[in-house]
Amino acid sequence: MICADATRPFSDRLCQAVEACDNPTVIGLDTRFDALPEPVLRERDALGDGGRDPEKRQAAILTYNRALLEAVAGIVPAVKLQIACYEREGVCGLAALSDTLAYASHCGLLTIVDGKRNDIGSTAEEYARAYLTDDAPFQADALTVNAYLGEDGIRPFLSAALATGRGVFVLVRTSNASAAQLQDLRLEDGRLVHQAMADLVRDWGQASVSGSGFSALGAVVGATWPEQARELRQRMPRTLFLIPGYGAQGAGAEQAVAGFTDDGRGGLVNASRSILNAWRNEPGDGRAFADAARREALRMRDDLRRALDGEKGLAGGIVR
Amino acid sequence: MICADATRPFSDRLCQAVEACDNPTVIGLDTRFDALPEPVLRERDALGDGGRDPEKRQAAILTYNRALLEAVAGIVPAVKLQIACYEREGVCGLAALSDTLAYASHCGLLTIVDGKRNDIGSTAEEYARAYLTDDAPFQADALTVNAYLGEDGIRPFLSAALATGRGVFVLVRTSNASAAQLQDLRLEDGRLVHQAMADLVRDWGQASVSGSGFSALGAVVGATWPEQARELRQRMPRTLFLIPGYGAQGAGAEQAVAGFTDDGRGGLVNASRSILNAWRNEPGDGRAFADAARREALRMRDDLRRALDGEKGLAGGIVR
Repeated sequence: MICADATRPFSDRLCQAVEACDNPTVIGLDTRFDALPEPVLRERDALGDGGRDPEKRQAAILTYNRALLEAVAGIVPAVKLQIACYEREGVCGLAALSDTLAYASHCGLLTIVDGKRNDIGSTAEEYARAYLTDDAPFQADALTVNAYLGEDGIRPFLSAALATGRGVFVLVRTSNASAAQLQDLRLEDGRLVHQAMADLVRDWGQASVSGSGFSALGAVVGATWPEQARELRQRMPRTLFLIPGYGAQGAGAEQAVAGFTDDGRGGLVNASRSILNAWRNEPGDGRAFADAARREALRMRDDLRRALDGEKGLAGGIVR
Repeated sequence: MICADATRPFSDRLCQAVEACDNPTVIGLDTRFDALPEPVLRERDALGDGGRDPEKRQAAILTYNRALLEAVAGIVPAVKLQIACYEREGVCGLAALSDTLAYASHCGLLTIVDGKRNDIGSTAEEYARAYLTDDAPFQADALTVNAYLGEDGIRPFLSAALATGRGVFVLVRTSNASAAQLQDLRLEDGRLVHQAMADLVRDWGQASVSGSGFSALGAVVGATWPEQARELRQRMPRTLFLIPGYGAQGAGAEQAVAGFTDDGRGGLVNASRSILNAWRNEPGDGRAFADAARREALRMRDDLRRALDGEKGLAGGIVR
């Protein structure tokens, strides 16, 4: 296992895992029952009753996730689980989330729960207990959060994370088209709203910079806005970037690595649909979905390596 | 039941329920296992093994919630469930959430899930399926959301809500001390960030204003900032305000009703701890927690009615 020692700082564990794989990819397990290949559904007898049985849905999702995790372990350092996909399945879906997280850790993969959770004080502490403690029901190595509520809404997450070598990623500049509506409003001091958020994230995280040179408080910075990603890297030199938007959302590798440091570190590029649906671009009924995902993960790794060579002028892959 | 016809617009159903109770209160069921009165824990045999058995924890939480719902039904129009408290209990806690929501509806109470969920596109649709559809596993009348991601992050929630007479509340100005760090930054056009958010919420909600005069897209506006609440009411005349911060968080009734319309409408004041913990201010071992909650709910109702008389100059309670 890459990350057995959970008392080490999250950023150190993540940087080491990226280095071990020579691959700054995180695969998004946004698993949707309706998008599962038919052989998986048949294997779990999940098509009867119009696919309504929650336990059969759960079994099918878990079967798919486990095969996918086994296929990409060793190639990618981490997986990201989008809670919404599990939450909409109800308690059975959340049981699948819990099991998937445990199995990912078993496979040596770091786990990020993409929950964008946010609240204050004792309520934020409850969320932290759900994801960021050693006896959490949904144990992850890191959680995404939304900091619209300010420091009261971040401190409880960060404290819990730091106590057990976990991490937190704050939404700074998201990858979607309407992100600009609020995040790009211009402040009277000249900054944009998302730049003000970046400055807060940098300040909140400063005390937790560890051996890797990065803080336990990371930032979500969409791949679809490379200019802004470069500017944000200047603003947050010690912040790990979680970078959605590669692949299906439209950004290429060059854009995705724009926010990496000059020595090609500090970023984790997410891909979900392009990996999960890779089997759709191949012949067959989807039975070989895991192999297709593995091939796409390898292709993406090489794509990112090439882009880092170009963008950062690195000779021979990622230098650390 | 107050709200049997779920095809009517949410704002109409809410305004009617507030009128029927003559009480703009929503009780926050932020139920924490560790804060339950001992008689409930004993009744459910939930103290063995250090209170670790998830199913016994679930049973105790549900027993408490059901008694509380029965005690306040008919006095208050709505309850708000803080998901964090259930999520940290894992799948059993979320089963308790689902059961509590169903029982609240059975008691004729409108239900608001306080999840502050946020994401974009198809992911936001998954969240909406979890809470805002007729076959949702956690069926609520409304959900709180965070709009840092802009319209892409709101439209899927609002569309789902409108299809079935449900509602959405967007965080605009939260009640916590550090809310100002981002929400009160001054834009170059003179507005504060939360005012810009208010303008977005008003615009996004405009098309869903129904017979009550209010939109299906409400706003969370903390009771702890009455000046800002008055200003926000000018900015969002057609927006329902969900108002946290009364009671344990420090705001009095006068502050809490500052954002109501001049005719005393359009607001829903939340209280959680002051109701849930009312039994702690009375003699006994907490066996009578539901009676204590009921008395506190009646006291709060009268407190808000008096404040509306004073603040809005209304003769004899809330006028509609």
